[in-house]
Amino acid sequence: MSGSINIGLLGLGTVGSGVVRILEQNGTAIAQKLGQPLRIKRILVRDLKRHRQVAVDPSLLTADPEAILDDPEIPIVVEVMGGTGAAREYILQAFSRGKNVVTANKDLLALYGKELFDAAAVHGVDLLFEASVGGGIPIIHPLKECLAGNRIRQVMGIVNGTTNYILTKMSREKRDFANVLHEAITLGYAEADPAADIEGDDAARKMAILASIAFSTRITYPDVYREGISRITVDDINYAADLGYAIKLLGLAREDSEGIEVRVHPALVPLNHPLAAVSDVFNAIFVEGDAVGETMFYGRGAGSLPTASAVVGDIMEAARNIAHRTSGRIACTCFYDKPIKPMGATITRYYLRLIVVDRPGVLASIAGVFGDREVGLASVIQERMLGELAELVLITHRVREQNLQDALQMLADLPVVKEIACILRVEGGETR
Amino acid sequence: MSGSINIGLLGLGTVGSGVVRILEQNGTAIAQKLGQPLRIKRILVRDLKRHRQVAVDPSLLTADPEAILDDPEIPIVVEVMGGTGAAREYILQAFSRGKNVVTANKDLLALYGKELFDAAAVHGVDLLFEASVGGGIPIIHPLKECLAGNRIRQVMGIVNGTTNYILTKMSREKRDFANVLHEAITLGYAEADPAADIEGDDAARKMAILASIAFSTRITYPDVYREGISRITVDDINYAADLGYAIKLLGLAREDSEGIEVRVHPALVPLNHPLAAVSDVFNAIFVEGDAVGETMFYGRGAGSLPTASAVVGDIMEAARNIAHRTSGRIACTCFYDKPIKPMGATITRYYLRLIVVDRPGVLASIAGVFGDREVGLASVIQERMLGELAELVLITHRVREQNLQDALQMLADLPVVKEIACILRVEGGETR
Repeated sequence: MSGSINIGLLGLGTVGSGVVRILEQNGTAIAQKLGQPLRIKRILVRDLKRHRQVAVDPSLLTADPEAILDDPEIPIVVEVMGGTGAAREYILQAFSRGKNVVTANKDLLALYGKELFDAAAVHGVDLLFEASVGGGIPIIHPLKECLAGNRIRQVMGIVNGTTNYILTKMSREKRDFANVLHEAITLGYAEADPAADIEGDDAARKMAILASIAFSTRITYPDVYREGISRITVDDINYAADLGYAIKLLGLAREDSEGIEVRVHPALVPLNHPLAAVSDVFNAIFVEGDAVGETMFYGRGAGSLPTASAVVGDIMEAARNIAHRTSGRIACTCFYDKPIKPMGATITRYYLRLIVVDRPGVLASIAGVFGDREVGLASVIQERMLGELAELVLITHRVREQNLQDALQMLADLPVVKEIACILRVEGGETR
Repeated sequence: MSGSINIGLLGLGTVGSGVVRILEQNGTAIAQKLGQPLRIKRILVRDLKRHRQVAVDPSLLTADPEAILDDPEIPIVVEVMGGTGAAREYILQAFSRGKNVVTANKDLLALYGKELFDAAAVHGVDLLFEASVGGGIPIIHPLKECLAGNRIRQVMGIVNGTTNYILTKMSREKRDFANVLHEAITLGYAEADPAADIEGDDAARKMAILASIAFSTRITYPDVYREGISRITVDDINYAADLGYAIKLLGLAREDSEGIEVRVHPALVPLNHPLAAVSDVFNAIFVEGDAVGETMFYGRGAGSLPTASAVVGDIMEAARNIAHRTSGRIACTCFYDKPIKPMGATITRYYLRLIVVDRPGVLASIAGVFGDREVGLASVIQERMLGELAELVLITHRVREQNLQDALQMLADLPVVKEIACILRVEGGETR
């Protein structure tokens, strides 16, 4: 067995601690698989004195990035510090010094992916990022390599564990959003500032990364349409269940002749769709290709050891490439420049909940508005009476988003329509 | 873009036709991804005149294997002819002439894996086999690379589409095994000779391959214990459903301090387990690792284009390795030699259905036998009367298989026990 391969770790938080733990626990088998052991040579931390989640030799810790970036004996830098400031700088510096980089940083990739991949290519080094989407779930490599013979039709993902946990709890325990969110924060399942999760920003970053690979064109975070889950009510979850659907925060990426659409929003998913059964903090990415048909990748989308599992897989890949002198072997595959479809041009079905005056002829005038805008109604259910008002739940046929928005605008102007209480897309059925 | 990479196809049946189709449909994008196009140079067929599932230039067809094996311009041989005779010879010859091989041949790998991988290593070439398990589902690469940092605890798979289709139909339509099998053969979902599927042989071959990778030790087909599904009745499916379980043909591979167990048999799986929802011809492989936790890979486990999707992914991998001069990059990882656990030493829960004489004291004597052999009973349900007889459904606690078998032997000798009508394992719960 030849000498060890040195790793410099940037960050020793949740994911970094997991990497240290895996290399300790499974280091022997990993060395057997690689033909040489992996060794963490230095770890960049902000505070040398802080208590750590994992026991490490204090002499490994450094507060000076140059101790890693300037060490010619470290060919692999693992960036698990997060953020888009220093992390970006350090990665670019690592590249310029011929080092390979493994990162879990979705924020960075979803914004600066092109810059980073271009820099890696210039220096002929690896930029590996399996951990950036779906935590420990293998999805980047399968999509980029195993499924590379396919034209990908769509990627649908439950890629945020916090929101999936909240929606699962709301659905099982019939508790409202604010109540479950509060509990999730208390239990540590949601951040104290939960906006990035519940507004869909985190999921949007992951979808930008997945869509870029799936369609071989650069999609960045601002390209992704997003809506969060804060307006979902238990009533909507119940009505959806009655109609045979679960409500999930879905990431969607599709391609058709008009371009690429990438969006994150809550959606009704048929209960018989594999994504509907993905509960609690679990993530799953459903990929449809022209050859492979429907596939799904399921597992824990976050957490110290699951995310570190993906990081270690990538470190091993980088180590193999170093041993075979093929660093930079699979570079960026965004060789197309495809247009992004405006949201108004997307086509899907909608679930609508309206509060209307309960009076003869009301349904006819509502149906008339939809008809005017060519919005077909698949089902209309009067759910319950609210004094003089009635609650209507409608599911549309497939319709262009712009037509639906126009119809809703006209509905809002009808005196008999008191409130458009909920608008949700229905996904996971036929797409053509 | 540099010159094309030539491929020799051994076989033009279901999978071979799929490979031709994918390279036709998606050849341009594939060439972009690789930096050079793939080109099928020759195709070995038995009968040059036979009608083909796909249109190919007749000049590509040959009945002479040497036209491929002896062509120095063909660096990648794709073996999709099946069988363990000529296929094995051709692959060994291809290796000896420095060619890389992509195969979908599970029968061959599950029997002659060691010989083939050793030969590939000697000649420094690739032997890639993503298509051998789970059709188009990426599972070999994820297990071998993305999850390589994990100690794998267990692999549980629904890896045979025919039996999953039959069990799904029996469960949904309450039709008996023979009836559904007959229909499946008529519709082409099952082979005219369905033994390899319904007796679990096909699943056992796939589990031998998965277990070898998961535990880094060579498991061959004869090492795998197997039971088929032909004795499953609709009654058992109904009782299982009442108790909260689905019946699936499961492949299981586990490691503990006593060694490796690999087995294929029908089993009760809790309805809230991700595998329980895998229906029809779909396959799924559930992998549990010490770092990643629970993951699952889902998709079509057979069929022309799905299987060809995996083959084309492997061809692209072989082509990249040729371009980078790193063929043989990831060799066999069976570097341990772990013992196979005898079935008697395996531990699980059991579902039992007994036909007994309906008389006071009968239950006590049955319970006594189980108690003698230290078989704990989790639940005992008297399901229905059959004249003077009663049907008992029991679920045991976790018990060593040998103890259960001993108890069943003693039960069979009790005059009040008329029949041990069904014995099924219960899996997918706690394993420790």
